Amino acid sequence: MLSTTARTRLGREKDRGSADRNDLYDVLDAGLVCHLGVVVDGHPRVIPTGYGRIGETLYLHGSTGARSLRAGSDDSGGDVCVTVTHVDGIVLARSVFNHSINYRSAMIYGRARPVTDEDERMAGLRALSEQLAPGQWDYARKPTAKELAATAVLALSLEEASVKIRRGAPKDEEADYALPLWAGVLPIDTKWGEPQPDPVLPKEIGIPVHIADR
Amino acid sequence: MLSTTARTRLGREKDRGSADRNDLYDVLDAGLVCHLGVVVDGHPRVIPTGYGRIGETLYLHGSTGARSLRAGSDDSGGDVCVTVTHVDGIVLARSVFNHSINYRSAMIYGRARPVTDEDERMAGLRALSEQLAPGQWDYARKPTAKELAATAVLALSLEEASVKIRRGAPKDEEADYALPLWAGVLPIDTKWGEPQPDPVLPKEIGIPVHIADR
Repeated sequence: MLSTTARTRLGREKDRGSADRNDLYDVLDAGLVCHLGVVVDGHPRVIPTGYGRIGETLYLHGSTGARSLRAGSDDSGGDVCVTVTHVDGIVLARSVFNHSINYRSAMIYGRARPVTDEDERMAGLRALSEQLAPGQWDYARKPTAKELAATAVLALSLEEASVKIRRGAPKDEEADYALPLWAGVLPIDTKWGEPQPDPVLPKEIGIPVHIADR
Repeated sequence: MLSTTARTRLGREKDRGSADRNDLYDVLDAGLVCHLGVVVDGHPRVIPTGYGRIGETLYLHGSTGARSLRAGSDDSGGDVCVTVTHVDGIVLARSVFNHSINYRSAMIYGRARPVTDEDERMAGLRALSEQLAPGQWDYARKPTAKELAATAVLALSLEEASVKIRRGAPKDEEADYALPLWAGVLPIDTKWGEPQPDPVLPKEIGIPVHIADR
């Protein structure tokens, strides 16, 4: 079950909330990028960035020099908010006011912890890599010591999180159902396209199964 | 041209930045939801929400009771950060470290202005509606006075904004090009699916052209 705090309690559209921790995992595991919110000099900053999950921990990474990562880690004392959103369709109602979006979204709040233990750093980076490109951690060249030194890894507990999901048909005002207007959902399909080889790739190097089959 | 401020100056990956205002418009006009960042009680909050654009102004809306909108408007004195991100593909490099994402993203910073003028409110709501569902403002039932009273509209100037775009093949370390590894881009295609009529829709109501042709 997902705990409720002042931040994760849903102020509106409570029927869209889910307290099922598996819904949280599903939304996170289906995503490629999150939107990381931090406070820098008192102002919000929202950065699209990759992430990975191991159990109850979300991993983020970035350049060791990046301001945004420092702003969201222990050193600065600031919390972060990580939001992952999938847009599944446009809900076309009979009234403009009741138009909506079918979506799945997760929000996680907390203090990000800079990961210093080398084993956890590697596990976190592997999770980040596999979230984006499953199979590539074992296939591609692994990070060198220099590359690792240039990379900051942050861990964020999934303890304080909320999930919102909207599915299905429009919900119109009772009187509006009599209007002679079309209503329904326009779904959005997101699919992998054909892999595009690097133009300088030697022709004899075929595409590996883990990419072709994705 | 996009102005540069301390917030919009790119700290890293400067080659991905664009100073072309048309790139900003293109990224915004192609999106369905933004991620709105506000500071609430000193902590960041990132909310997925719709938006619309008219010229140099971005419009946001929400319930008049929503905490997040109040936190980002003049009354509270806080700035907002609006980020719109399109994920176009996964960049599979020869090294894990150089894996990347092909994306287009825009970030806008500023103080949101509560819109009180009725004409501007209607124009803003129309822009929001048309961004999500072009043609529906004129097709569906328009807002009533009561619905309008329940809706807060905010305006955000596009003056302080930045755009980042990554396209094309992986960029690997010189030595890695000799590795016998596949490298390239796995594109992500986002398409409209078949419109799904509301189950209670009378059969004689056909789908309008502006939806069918989208």
